[in-house]
Amino acid sequence: MPERIVLYTAKICPYAQRAEIALAEAKAPHIQYQIDLQNKPEWYAPKVNPASKVPAIAYGGPDVPPDQPSPESVKLAESLILVEFIADLFPDSGILPADPVLRAKARFFVDGVSTKFVPAWQAYLQGKSPVEDFYKAVEYLQGLLPEQGYAIGRYSLADIALTPFLARARVALLNDFGGYPQGEGPKVIESLTSESGRFARIGKYFNDLLARESFKATFDEGYITERYKARFADLRK
Amino acid sequence: MPERIVLYTAKICPYAQRAEIALAEAKAPHIQYQIDLQNKPEWYAPKVNPASKVPAIAYGGPDVPPDQPSPESVKLAESLILVEFIADLFPDSGILPADPVLRAKARFFVDGVSTKFVPAWQAYLQGKSPVEDFYKAVEYLQGLLPEQGYAIGRYSLADIALTPFLARARVALLNDFGGYPQGEGPKVIESLTSESGRFARIGKYFNDLLARESFKATFDEGYITERYKARFADLRK
Repeated sequence: MPERIVLYTAKICPYAQRAEIALAEAKAPHIQYQIDLQNKPEWYAPKVNPASKVPAIAYGGPDVPPDQPSPESVKLAESLILVEFIADLFPDSGILPADPVLRAKARFFVDGVSTKFVPAWQAYLQGKSPVEDFYKAVEYLQGLLPEQGYAIGRYSLADIALTPFLARARVALLNDFGGYPQGEGPKVIESLTSESGRFARIGKYFNDLLARESFKATFDEGYITERYKARFADLRK
Repeated sequence: MPERIVLYTAKICPYAQRAEIALAEAKAPHIQYQIDLQNKPEWYAPKVNPASKVPAIAYGGPDVPPDQPSPESVKLAESLILVEFIADLFPDSGILPADPVLRAKARFFVDGVSTKFVPAWQAYLQGKSPVEDFYKAVEYLQGLLPEQGYAIGRYSLADIALTPFLARARVALLNDFGGYPQGEGPKVIESLTSESGRFARIGKYFNDLLARESFKATFDEGYITERYKARFADLRK
């Protein structure tokens, strides 16, 4: 029986949302505590995560308020490590299947998210590389997908790693926020989710990810849109 | 019962040695095939690893020669994913313990190896940063160690991730190969393995890692020394 879980998170942060989705998939009883990343509480780094980032989990220990963390709980950090931790605590969640080959395939897809999709998206968002470079990263992931279903068939760690980044990219593109050429954003998200043409397979996959209940329950589109507007709408000036 | 394992590897490569150590720890029957990284065989990228890197594993499929890989085997790549795969195939190897907290701690240590130790070592080796930056990365890992034993107590994934990089750093330092100030190398490795002073705890740990049978059985010090001499001895010129 898993012990007490306190998740330190922030709605803006795609890494933090990975942990939130994993906990939702596992239907894991837990407490969430929002960290204001612009104005972090003084106790957070010394008592929870020395790197001062979200997400982090305090696991076990006494039933204390989240803003008075106990030294008796174990403190864990790094989003993918937390998702694997939740998968280990809740093996029936399906976040990682039992089959070693499928587990390796899920982790290999995550590697593509971390080393290809996320950096290519960031570069495009900032106006530092053409859309074709981002498309190539998307095509790479598309090449890893099975004929049907999620990244390894059934919903898993692989999908959890990608979805928060995809969802934030969608918000930026729909609203044309970013440093790429004006007017390009809506066309890019249209082509990536149209389920026909060059991105037909991954378009279907993207739509499946965005329709997943655990994602929708942990994503505040209005809030992300406002924050992204403040952060990225003026990048072209 | 695990299926047939063919490991594609190269003696020079620290990433590949991770997979070799894991297979040795698991006492896993397998076939090794050396890839000449300077002159890769034509079939390697199309038939084994599109990224054309080692290590890679061909898992299952018919009993074919390693240089004629069958499309029926599953091809897996990325060193840490392979170590986790071997841990999943051989749970009794102890490469990853069953306890979710210890598994998370092992993975967190690996994250420190990947994001702190390896880049700090590379920068120092190339003469691009002072030794103090490398020492800080070592101190970070030291801060994660328990009072005794390996990174999480018992030998695990965490130790496997670090050892091949530590061993190659030791060879370079002992022989004063690299772009750092002449004569500094032997002093640095002496201070890092002396088991007293600033690095007392991690010095003991480093010595334990280098004494591990699975490491020694997979490391050819003479070969690495010759290759490192050719590659790094002239960096100061």
